[in-house]
Amino acid sequence: MSDLRVAVLGVGIMGADHVSRLTSRISGATVTVVNDFITEKAEQIAAGIPGCRVIGDPLDAIADADVDAVVLATPGPTHDKQLLACLEHRKPVLCEKPLTTDVESSLEVVRREAELGTRLIQVGFMRRFDPEYMQLKSLLDAEEFGTPLVLHCVHRNPAVPPSFDSSMIVKDSLVHEVDVTRFLFDEEITSIQILRPAPNPGAPVGIQDPQIAIMRTASGKHVDVELFVTTGVGYEVRTELVGENGSAFIGLDVGLIRKGAPGTWGGQITPGFRERFGLAYDIEFQRWVDAVRAGAATGDYTDGPTAWDGYAAAAVCAAGVESLNSGDRVEVSMVDRAAIPGA
Amino acid sequence: MSDLRVAVLGVGIMGADHVSRLTSRISGATVTVVNDFITEKAEQIAAGIPGCRVIGDPLDAIADADVDAVVLATPGPTHDKQLLACLEHRKPVLCEKPLTTDVESSLEVVRREAELGTRLIQVGFMRRFDPEYMQLKSLLDAEEFGTPLVLHCVHRNPAVPPSFDSSMIVKDSLVHEVDVTRFLFDEEITSIQILRPAPNPGAPVGIQDPQIAIMRTASGKHVDVELFVTTGVGYEVRTELVGENGSAFIGLDVGLIRKGAPGTWGGQITPGFRERFGLAYDIEFQRWVDAVRAGAATGDYTDGPTAWDGYAAAAVCAAGVESLNSGDRVEVSMVDRAAIPGA
Amino acid sequence: MSDLRVAVLGVGIMGADHVSRLTSRISGATVTVVNDFITEKAEQIAAGIPGCRVIGDPLDAIADADVDAVVLATPGPTHDKQLLACLEHRKPVLCEKPLTTDVESSLEVVRREAELGTRLIQVGFMRRFDPEYMQLKSLLDAEEFGTPLVLHCVHRNPAVPPSFDSSMIVKDSLVHEVDVTRFLFDEEITSIQILRPAPNPGAPVGIQDPQIAIMRTASGKHVDVELFVTTGVGYEVRTELVGENGSAFIGLDVGLIRKGAPGTWGGQITPGFRERFGLAYDIEFQRWVDAVRAGAATGDYTDGPTAWDGYAAAAVCAAGVESLNSGDRVEVSMVDRAAIPGA
Amino acid sequence: MSDLRVAVLGVGIMGADHVSRLTSRISGATVTVVNDFITEKAEQIAAGIPGCRVIGDPLDAIADADVDAVVLATPGPTHDKQLLACLEHRKPVLCEKPLTTDVESSLEVVRREAELGTRLIQVGFMRRFDPEYMQLKSLLDAEEFGTPLVLHCVHRNPAVPPSFDSSMIVKDSLVHEVDVTRFLFDEEITSIQILRPAPNPGAPVGIQDPQIAIMRTASGKHVDVELFVTTGVGYEVRTELVGENGSAFIGLDVGLIRKGAPGTWGGQITPGFRERFGLAYDIEFQRWVDAVRAGAATGDYTDGPTAWDGYAAAAVCAAGVESLNSGDRVEVSMVDRAAIPGA
Repeated sequence: MSDLRVAVLGVGIMGADHVSRLTSRISGATVTVVNDFITEKAEQIAAGIPGCRVIGDPLDAIADADVDAVVLATPGPTHDKQLLACLEHRKPVLCEKPLTTDVESSLEVVRREAELGTRLIQVGFMRRFDPEYMQLKSLLDAEEFGTPLVLHCVHRNPAVPPSFDSSMIVKDSLVHEVDVTRFLFDEEITSIQILRPAPNPGAPVGIQDPQIAIMRTASGKHVDVELFVTTGVGYEVRTELVGENGSAFIGLDVGLIRKGAPGTWGGQITPGFRERFGLAYDIEFQRWVDAVRAGAATGDYTDGPTAWDGYAAAAVCAAGVESLNSGDRVEVSMVDRAAIPGA
Repeated sequence: MSDLRVAVLGVGIMGADHVSRLTSRISGATVTVVNDFITEKAEQIAAGIPGCRVIGDPLDAIADADVDAVVLATPGPTHDKQLLACLEHRKPVLCEKPLTTDVESSLEVVRREAELGTRLIQVGFMRRFDPEYMQLKSLLDAEEFGTPLVLHCVHRNPAVPPSFDSSMIVKDSLVHEVDVTRFLFDEEITSIQILRPAPNPGAPVGIQDPQIAIMRTASGKHVDVELFVTTGVGYEVRTELVGENGSAFIGLDVGLIRKGAPGTWGGQITPGFRERFGLAYDIEFQRWVDAVRAGAATGDYTDGPTAWDGYAAAAVCAAGVESLNSGDRVEVSMVDRAAIPGA
Repeated sequence: MSDLRVAVLGVGIMGADHVSRLTSRISGATVTVVNDFITEKAEQIAAGIPGCRVIGDPLDAIADADVDAVVLATPGPTHDKQLLACLEHRKPVLCEKPLTTDVESSLEVVRREAELGTRLIQVGFMRRFDPEYMQLKSLLDAEEFGTPLVLHCVHRNPAVPPSFDSSMIVKDSLVHEVDVTRFLFDEEITSIQILRPAPNPGAPVGIQDPQIAIMRTASGKHVDVELFVTTGVGYEVRTELVGENGSAFIGLDVGLIRKGAPGTWGGQITPGFRERFGLAYDIEFQRWVDAVRAGAATGDYTDGPTAWDGYAAAAVCAAGVESLNSGDRVEVSMVDRAAIPGA
Repeated sequence: MSDLRVAVLGVGIMGADHVSRLTSRISGATVTVVNDFITEKAEQIAAGIPGCRVIGDPLDAIADADVDAVVLATPGPTHDKQLLACLEHRKPVLCEKPLTTDVESSLEVVRREAELGTRLIQVGFMRRFDPEYMQLKSLLDAEEFGTPLVLHCVHRNPAVPPSFDSSMIVKDSLVHEVDVTRFLFDEEITSIQILRPAPNPGAPVGIQDPQIAIMRTASGKHVDVELFVTTGVGYEVRTELVGENGSAFIGLDVGLIRKGAPGTWGGQITPGFRERFGLAYDIEFQRWVDAVRAGAATGDYTDGPTAWDGYAAAAVCAAGVESLNSGDRVEVSMVDRAAIPGA
């Protein structure tokens, strides 16, 4: 099956990250077109990718015959028009949040896609793909906590750009907890209130930070969110779900922690080597593939343990087996590495 | 750049895993040949991969013109001959441990590769690519702990196959800690002793389990390893490094935990969203690429949040901004989803 | 200095606990009088304490010449009259919460004590004496978090007695967080709102559980409290303080956990053996004193490691020193314990 | 029952601590005699305790008619003679480790006490009274881990006095793990080996630090201990017990952590308020008793929350109940504290 040919629109920090993701870590996709309102940036990115072109007009990029699908990492106010163009050309699109910047145009996009009868638009709420959120969701769906009742969230940034204002804390930060709430509870949010505590003395003048959001869902579940974007500490995104039969924490930097009957708290031990080292294998293989592809140029087709490392391990294990049998300490016998030039 | 064409030799549990890794999660590689001594298994795997052939003789597979590089997941006793064939054909090879099953043949492989003057062989000690081991190594290399002094390791499996014997605990389990020791300390192990405590009553008769390995490195560092492969609990692989200026734990299922002056213990807060959600983005993109490629068949080009999810988030955030300004609770206004067929 | 002679009024679960505390763990106090509206209960308790009498009328107990000070563990509605009696007789009193059951009578008690010009009344908000709360308070006072901004609290009980109603969740549970807030922030609470999420299906009919309390202090600090008294899990009392320069958690069953710059989370390592084992020494000494006092009756003046344990330790350490010098394994040499009758 | 009259012999750091423990935190004991080879130290301590005398000769102190029992905190080499004097006078004695400084005299003490047929000697291995060790022991005795198999211990000090030598690491530090092993396993240690890794560059010249002790018990259980007394970090005393059906960690500064089937790790949630706040109540009561006894001098008979704190809590809770009923935010109404002089 041939690779999916993707146009990435907007190659700022986020878009450039997505380009690198698609070209070096994702199987089955090729970036064939990039676009940015700063042409030099797009050209710089394209230069590093074989067969990739810059197209200056985002709508032309969407329409281009070499483009099967689109990633939108452009500024929010342009999403509206670009999404409609994707629909018109029947091009699947992964759109960074927000869908659009206002409710009416978002609804219009929903309607237009619904009329097509094909789902083409995916929104970039990436937390749904985070292993901890996925684990929490699957425990919820398995009714491990009984009826979910309350969600406590924390969203903390060490700092924000100077252009950040109070309403962006709602639209850019809280929006993730809005989606998390809807994802975990499978129901809509019906009311919201933003409380304004005495502000952080260290926050820029005029910014209401921290904020506390109180939300209520259709069935009456309570959600509270601390939004605090000038903590000076780190990026902390935390959720505690409280249910009828127990609770669970994610985002404490220590994996999912559950509390439940009979009065215990704790986490899961990784069941086997594939769960424990699956990511390690992925990284190992990606780095090996990259090293081999670059090997003709470098003369080294490895990026990891060498044959010598294999030999050394064999020598130690052989001594280990001898000790297992004798019970005594065994000196490890190995040849002098320097005596084998190139090893 | 064209994809690396890989032959996977041996498609048991491990090899099949690697095939799936190369075809669905690794960028830049295609599996063109598979081989297994059970032909049906190889044929079953090949059938799922466009353009992939079965070659019945592993040496033919290595020599094949459609093969740029080889992954060896065959039984250990066959590695010797297969590695030499890879060297002969100048094919890069990623070889699952062990390199070979005895010290002499391992050394012979080292010598033959050294004579070529090109590094072609990489051994599958995947722990070197595990994020926690990498983090520990980089803290060590940055001399965050001063001189490293002692390493305590634990290697526990819930159970082992019936064929497991005492010496396999050394050769199959301890071998990883042997490599970890050499990786972390950058020096060779000079002696080893295996202690035999009173055995676990639950272990199969005749198996010495647990075992305690005591190793010493060239510079006199002490390493101890508890090997216990019938715990009935989970897969626990743990390492504590103790240095002149502090210590660190990995493998406690809670990330790397450091202890250091001034008398504190703890971990690192994720600095930003890319570190916290980088893996989520990767998963999101891989699933989106897969969904789009399958979309013509399914009629659905998404595998995640839809346009409706984007609209709902916009509606809640708009109400949030209104509440931020008024201080009051605001009811969220949304259209009836059922009124838009297809949404 | 002679012991403080204490009257304990009310010897239900709480009062009986306090009697046992005063007689067996607290230095310098003797319970001379107990009282309860169930006379049998009082008599049973008094019978176990040398020199302790039952006095049937609580006001007589307060006035009694053998009483220097009073502990009030009677039902809340009787506190009013009993406290005023304590003031009248100038007897110091430790009063379990609530001070009284309504605001007016509480204020009247405040006024009457203020007129005396002597502080005689202490209220039993025991959290102020909990090591974790004390540690949090002292970090706050040392301005380790800069300006405190937000407090998140959780108060969970596994179950409540059948007589519990919704307002008791406020008056009996939330009251502790009210005091914690005032204790940590040194300022008054100026407004409060109780939110009512969809109730726990497992809660008794008619009880609003969980409840969410939102409080605001004089300087605008935000406090939220989850009150959930039918969790079926355990007793969880948790507080997270969020300040300008970092945050701290207590009540997670793992000691105080801090988050702060430079992006780290964690706790304190016990600095020395007195901090680590101070409580162990206290328990050891109390048990030894108790055993020695009972020794004439039991013929055993110990409750812990015996002389044999001391001998065995000496034998192992002597072998250890020999091994330290030789580097070899040394067999421990000990006499046969059975050969020394009585050892 | 009258208080136990205790003589404390040796009032260096440890002995002075024990004096303070007996006089201010332990119920039922009075220190009537103190002794130290530095007379001034003894006099200074005695001066602070009503009715306490200094006796210059330790054997006279033991024999004194005002002494019911003895605490030995004198240097180890004097224990021998002092213990025998205690036996001769039939005085119960709590003896700080070591029992005596050599195996022969320890055995002699054991024999002499055994001849008396009364247990008078308790050795100060205080870890047996540490809540975490007690919890681990009771889980073991309840066979929660099946047969215990292996014990991993760590004993780390930030620093040691200049007089410390290599053998003191065995006799003063390891001795605790020797007792812990015997306590947990209820069997004797039969062999020991001390390994000497490359030393910590930061340790004083000539000191073998760290050391690794390997012990084996009568039934073949393996115990290893890392002894490292110049870490510069903190006081870390850690034990991991590995059994047939699970394992448990204590001393990680986070309470007892268990690992067991079905693949979970974690701790216990405090079941109720008495377990959670029992120590807080003890501290509250001791401080209140102390404050009341000092009240005639200070004019303040409290050391904790005052009547005003009780009033303030009542006012907030009354507003809370109002909000519970109305659902609205309620302003808290309180009188002006300044209007009540003395409140």
